[in-house]
Amino acid sequence: MNYREESLKKHAEWKGKIEVVSRVPVGSREELSLAYTPGVAEPCMAIHEDIEKSFELTRRWNTVPVITDGTAILGLGDIGPEAGMPVMEGKCALFKAFGNVDAYPLCIKSKDTEEIIKTIKLLSGSFGGINLEDISAPRCFEIETRLREELDIPVFHDDQHGTAIVMAAALLNTLKLIGKSLDEVKLVINGAGAAGISIAKFLLKLGVKNLISCDKLGILVEGDTRFNSAQQELAKMSNREKLSGTLADAMKGADVFIGVSAPNCVTKDMVRSMADKCVLFPCANPVAEISREDALEAGAYIVGTGSSQYPNQINNVLVFPGIFRGALDVRASTINQEMMNAAAYAIADCVPADKLSTEYILPYAFDQSAHDAVAKAVADAAIRTGVAKITK
Amino acid sequence: MNYREESLKKHAEWKGKIEVVSRVPVGSREELSLAYTPGVAEPCMAIHEDIEKSFELTRRWNTVPVITDGTAILGLGDIGPEAGMPVMEGKCALFKAFGNVDAYPLCIKSKDTEEIIKTIKLLSGSFGGINLEDISAPRCFEIETRLREELDIPVFHDDQHGTAIVMAAALLNTLKLIGKSLDEVKLVINGAGAAGISIAKFLLKLGVKNLISCDKLGILVEGDTRFNSAQQELAKMSNREKLSGTLADAMKGADVFIGVSAPNCVTKDMVRSMADKCVLFPCANPVAEISREDALEAGAYIVGTGSSQYPNQINNVLVFPGIFRGALDVRASTINQEMMNAAAYAIADCVPADKLSTEYILPYAFDQSAHDAVAKAVADAAIRTGVAKITK
Repeated sequence: MNYREESLKKHAEWKGKIEVVSRVPVGSREELSLAYTPGVAEPCMAIHEDIEKSFELTRRWNTVPVITDGTAILGLGDIGPEAGMPVMEGKCALFKAFGNVDAYPLCIKSKDTEEIIKTIKLLSGSFGGINLEDISAPRCFEIETRLREELDIPVFHDDQHGTAIVMAAALLNTLKLIGKSLDEVKLVINGAGAAGISIAKFLLKLGVKNLISCDKLGILVEGDTRFNSAQQELAKMSNREKLSGTLADAMKGADVFIGVSAPNCVTKDMVRSMADKCVLFPCANPVAEISREDALEAGAYIVGTGSSQYPNQINNVLVFPGIFRGALDVRASTINQEMMNAAAYAIADCVPADKLSTEYILPYAFDQSAHDAVAKAVADAAIRTGVAKITK
Repeated sequence: MNYREESLKKHAEWKGKIEVVSRVPVGSREELSLAYTPGVAEPCMAIHEDIEKSFELTRRWNTVPVITDGTAILGLGDIGPEAGMPVMEGKCALFKAFGNVDAYPLCIKSKDTEEIIKTIKLLSGSFGGINLEDISAPRCFEIETRLREELDIPVFHDDQHGTAIVMAAALLNTLKLIGKSLDEVKLVINGAGAAGISIAKFLLKLGVKNLISCDKLGILVEGDTRFNSAQQELAKMSNREKLSGTLADAMKGADVFIGVSAPNCVTKDMVRSMADKCVLFPCANPVAEISREDALEAGAYIVGTGSSQYPNQINNVLVFPGIFRGALDVRASTINQEMMNAAAYAIADCVPADKLSTEYILPYAFDQSAHDAVAKAVADAAIRTGVAKITK
């Protein structure tokens, strides 16, 4: 099937992938008097007296906007706010299907960091959490950091952390198969945008010690001013041997390659230069860094990609519905590192030890028990770390 | 029934009066590839090439936010953005029930006119129209005017125009019963906030000549600087006899009294001073300017109120679902005076001549045929006045 052509046809038929429905009867005077005036004055005043009650008397407890500025839509780049909306709507449909979260798509017609932060802050009283989506780096870092500091509801940039969490889950199960630990595995990440930087930081926090990040200019090196500040900061935390050079240099002897970069930038020879039982996660979209077939032919032991057409799809659909379900369920004030770690381990643990194989390292995106497991693990971690308002 | 107490209980049970649901299947790899990546890239690019396509390939064609800043919630005043949300949600439920519009509740944490305008403009690419709600006067005038000028989608402040339209419909049918025409009826409006000023201006545009507006300080008089600028502007357009004095002075000999003001400010003696077959629409909420019983006792011929407990409920639920349904159906770029006039006449015409009586001047809020009639009249008027993008 030509998915893109067929998808365009389907979108024209669907005329929208989400819809707002009423949960209450309004078909008689009496019903109207309860759901609307005059009755509605009472829940209004209850919230006026205690804003916390907005999580009990309105839908706020279950609502999350999926917000973009349209600057980094899929691999399509800066195509504008309205053009990003099919992705936002799709994400909202997935939020509902797998997390029962009422997600609503919003696009902001601005690329100004301060304007975006301000807009989201001004709207934050309408929502139980904030999901940032497809905002380009490095603005996305500032936007997320500031919103996390300034809001008391969870803020999550899925392109950064969702991707990092599912990649961590893939790595955790991979390590079981290649018999190495987090602190001994040698790992190379190509791509140092929002996803690449976030994956690197996440894996370092998870316990990876030997990690090299590359970008178009090659290996990220501390002090090299051609790299942006976020990249230099990462260089300082990683590349402990202070290696410089190309991606090919970095990949020599590496156990794991993670790609969130550009099509066809990895050759078979580069795969051949990696360690025994080497693992590749080339996730560039829609065309990967190296095809699964080529990687296997060149000796890769495990290959995972972003594509749903192959085994081992590394898909952050496994993450965001459960992350928000868990956070919302316990009224977490934030999504902290422990909650994200818990999500990664929960996803990895969804693959039973006796079924784990080189072609089955992650649960399927449609496995509801995986989403439920993530939600539970995240909620538990929120309670454990003291950021949950509901603790039973 | 104690509606307020019962409503609080119901709201705690409902945990939200609206919900976002998915309209597409996402239960298999294939379905995911169509609704989400990789297929979704194609509708994204189609919109990138032509933003108009956002009305065909996403839900934009049918979406309207119900936006407040929480400053004039019902008759409760400035109770804060979060506390306004039960009303916004209720309105969204009504939008869906009677207009099949996907309305979404949003509150803005700011009272600054420029910030509110900016926020709504930045979000406007997400929506097919904008419904402003419960924003206090005189800020609501500036906000609506500016947004109407600066956006190319319909903007409608329901508290102003919805109220004015349903009041106009009530007046049109009332005039049939008392045998007077728009240009001979003598009309007094008490309350010169958002609703009162808007009703006055609307009725003047509809053809009323003899109209006096009052506020707490008495009759609005041109040049009296105790009145705000919007009130002075209205004074200039009305009160053709340059009367000054109290509400009681204004009501002497009047045919029609419209109240959107304060509880119990009209006495039986004031009703007795009105013309024969006098008509009262005391709509203050939750306690009216004078009770229906007292008004009838003092000789009123027709009484209509905001309450659903009595005949002749003057309820803007009759207006907003159909107004937006009609505007969205033809992709109107605005909601102009002709469209609003058409809505008023359509509502009035829903009461058949042979059923029109002093206790039945307006259709019931739950009469779907009334909503459909409004939608059709509004769409037709949009096409007629050249503001519709869809003209068949």
